[in-house]
Amino acid sequence: MTDTAAGQHDIDSPGQLARRRHGQSVLSRIDGHAGEAVIDSLADINPALGHHIAAFGFGDIYDRPGLDPRSRQLVTLGSLIALGGCEPQLKVHIGAALNVGISRDEITEVILHAACYCGFPRAVNASVVAREVFIERDTAPAT
Amino acid sequence: MTDTAAGQHDIDSPGQLARRRHGQSVLSRIDGHAGEAVIDSLADINPALGHHIAAFGFGDIYDRPGLDPRSRQLVTLGSLIALGGCEPQLKVHIGAALNVGISRDEITEVILHAACYCGFPRAVNASVVAREVFIERDTAPAT
Amino acid sequence: MTDTAAGQHDIDSPGQLARRRHGQSVLSRIDGHAGEAVIDSLADINPALGHHIAAFGFGDIYDRPGLDPRSRQLVTLGSLIALGGCEPQLKVHIGAALNVGISRDEITEVILHAACYCGFPRAVNASVVAREVFIERDTAPAT
Amino acid sequence: MTDTAAGQHDIDSPGQLARRRHGQSVLSRIDGHAGEAVIDSLADINPALGHHIAAFGFGDIYDRPGLDPRSRQLVTLGSLIALGGCEPQLKVHIGAALNVGISRDEITEVILHAACYCGFPRAVNASVVAREVFIERDTAPAT
Amino acid sequence: MTDTAAGQHDIDSPGQLARRRHGQSVLSRIDGHAGEAVIDSLADINPALGHHIAAFGFGDIYDRPGLDPRSRQLVTLGSLIALGGCEPQLKVHIGAALNVGISRDEITEVILHAACYCGFPRAVNASVVAREVFIERDTAPAT
Amino acid sequence: MTDTAAGQHDIDSPGQLARRRHGQSVLSRIDGHAGEAVIDSLADINPALGHHIAAFGFGDIYDRPGLDPRSRQLVTLGSLIALGGCEPQLKVHIGAALNVGISRDEITEVILHAACYCGFPRAVNASVVAREVFIERDTAPAT
Repeated sequence: MTDTAAGQHDIDSPGQLARRRHGQSVLSRIDGHAGEAVIDSLADINPALGHHIAAFGFGDIYDRPGLDPRSRQLVTLGSLIALGGCEPQLKVHIGAALNVGISRDEITEVILHAACYCGFPRAVNASVVAREVFIERDTAPAT
Repeated sequence: MTDTAAGQHDIDSPGQLARRRHGQSVLSRIDGHAGEAVIDSLADINPALGHHIAAFGFGDIYDRPGLDPRSRQLVTLGSLIALGGCEPQLKVHIGAALNVGISRDEITEVILHAACYCGFPRAVNASVVAREVFIERDTAPAT
Repeated sequence: MTDTAAGQHDIDSPGQLARRRHGQSVLSRIDGHAGEAVIDSLADINPALGHHIAAFGFGDIYDRPGLDPRSRQLVTLGSLIALGGCEPQLKVHIGAALNVGISRDEITEVILHAACYCGFPRAVNASVVAREVFIERDTAPAT
Repeated sequence: MTDTAAGQHDIDSPGQLARRRHGQSVLSRIDGHAGEAVIDSLADINPALGHHIAAFGFGDIYDRPGLDPRSRQLVTLGSLIALGGCEPQLKVHIGAALNVGISRDEITEVILHAACYCGFPRAVNASVVAREVFIERDTAPAT
Repeated sequence: MTDTAAGQHDIDSPGQLARRRHGQSVLSRIDGHAGEAVIDSLADINPALGHHIAAFGFGDIYDRPGLDPRSRQLVTLGSLIALGGCEPQLKVHIGAALNVGISRDEITEVILHAACYCGFPRAVNASVVAREVFIERDTAPAT
Repeated sequence: MTDTAAGQHDIDSPGQLARRRHGQSVLSRIDGHAGEAVIDSLADINPALGHHIAAFGFGDIYDRPGLDPRSRQLVTLGSLIALGGCEPQLKVHIGAALNVGISRDEITEVILHAACYCGFPRAVNASVVAREVFIERDTAPAT
């Protein structure tokens, strides 16, 4: 889909490949299939972005020992709800929150809590996304 | 849809119930069915959020005598247009603006005016929402 | 302060000059000295921006008959509070709100109302700006 | 669709009409049919907004000699990606970027670069829009 | 500082007073003097805002049993870092984070983590605020 | 200033150190002393953030061949102006823009252009930052 491969070559060097594979293993452990799907969905249009989300976002940052996975997901939810316009990412990360042991009640409580800081509209939109994730979990095998 | 009812129980205490009912009456007076629909739509996924939008947002704040309903809707529109990503809320509140006597021409003028502060893209998106509301009013009985 | 005058020349054509002068008269009528000061403060660094804020923002938009000055200021306050990081602009426009007859109590009520849509932090920051404006009005001749 | 024509009359004065026509010619040169479609789509709901996007945004600003079209589109992309919630506008301007000679690889690189400043979610959303534009170009005659 | 007390009277009704006092006790428990100072600082300019931050934000929301204090602060930090322009609020809540047992290293890790979602600039600004809080804790008796 | 070094240790591994040094050389080439100062200023409070801004932001992203430095700075300016609240970062990157050959007139034109997408207030704030950078360049040896 891109007219040349220029500027993308380095993401397949041995060093970058090792970083990406490590990041993808972290991503799969947390986000399951939904996370892998994000990276895969970027393969045709912006493979370097997918590479760096995996290599940097998950391999370099998420995997750091300084914060437990539950805490990371709470920060992530707080940020995504406040940013707005991140419904697809919120969907992945509400799923990830469930995966690391945050309950459905806690997720809806997170959304209510965030409303104090970013207002009710963002919280309503996040609740709609949460419903989608919960329904998918109820009607399909969990990731 | 939630795994336990923990943390939600207090919204049905007599005091909270009275606050919610008062808020819902304010909400219904302003937003009509569209407002009730927002609260109802949260009943399964985040009832406490719905409760507090009614009890706090409408009962505690909107109902205060310090600002007339027309003024409150103008502030609301200014905020929602600028925030972006609040199309569902903008739809409810453009309807509410009509309900409190703000004309269609005034609403489109509000959107044009807001463009100076938040840029053209937010104004174009708000115009698309306004069209939806106006068409619904033209083709269905008003709320 | 700029290395060449290239690209700025057109703002002093007779047509643009007439548009700017008209806009500045609207601006002065609403914002008084504070508004003029904004345009003046851009004269050395970005005169074309100052020109277009006057010519477009005030001459083309604010002066349109479709919305009264009180309503325009309510929309402006709603947008600026929600955007955040616009404290200098909020200061000018809280002054302008007073100039068009919006009371101090209404301004603080606007800020409280906006909190439902954009959260408490933006409302607290806007309140700090309102205090500054009110104190300046109490200790100095009004613009 | 509006209840009166009040407040819109001035956009068809000879002076405003000349400004709009000039702006539309700039817009068509850059954005092609997609740009015209945006203005046309506002004709029923907010014609004054469409007028000022053409007259001011394109006639007054985009056409200024101080910055080449490629540079303007790079700034535009950086702004729209960071703002979020501007997917329809991003679609028009990714098309415009291709029109002024920015390659597909450069556009995806712009998106990756912007991620450092506004985070990964905005970049992922922008990539989805880029894919849509690229596919439309591959399957239909270019604008 | 306000021209009349109209519209503020209800915050001192017995019911509202009880709600505010409960909220203030929650606020003091979490945020210590810094939290009280925020409410106090609003007493002259926007007492109703101060009331509702205490009564609603802390009494109604923060005190709910559905999420532990540590989790609430992680969500709060994620939201405030992402919103940007909330440095005063971030200062209070970084202090609150320390109060509920989140370590300094965890706080800086939260900021680094949030950078993936909202970009590096917001994270750098948050780090500057964290330094201020940490220095104040090192040089003065803790709140 | 941090209570333990846990979680930070990996940024000094040979691999990370090489990545950081490479990133810092890119950063110094573009941003000069101002860029180094940003990283240095994070050394005490959030060294891992400083590391990753250098290693990822500059080494992995900025240094990619897919976009020339001038284009990267135009995208950066567009993003930072639109985000708002990024004045310190805007200051560094307006300096960087000058370093890669973008003229002062082009920078002010970039700011005016961005106003169409993110509104006048953000553009006025960015102009104030540009003035600071230009004055510093006039009164001190360039970085």
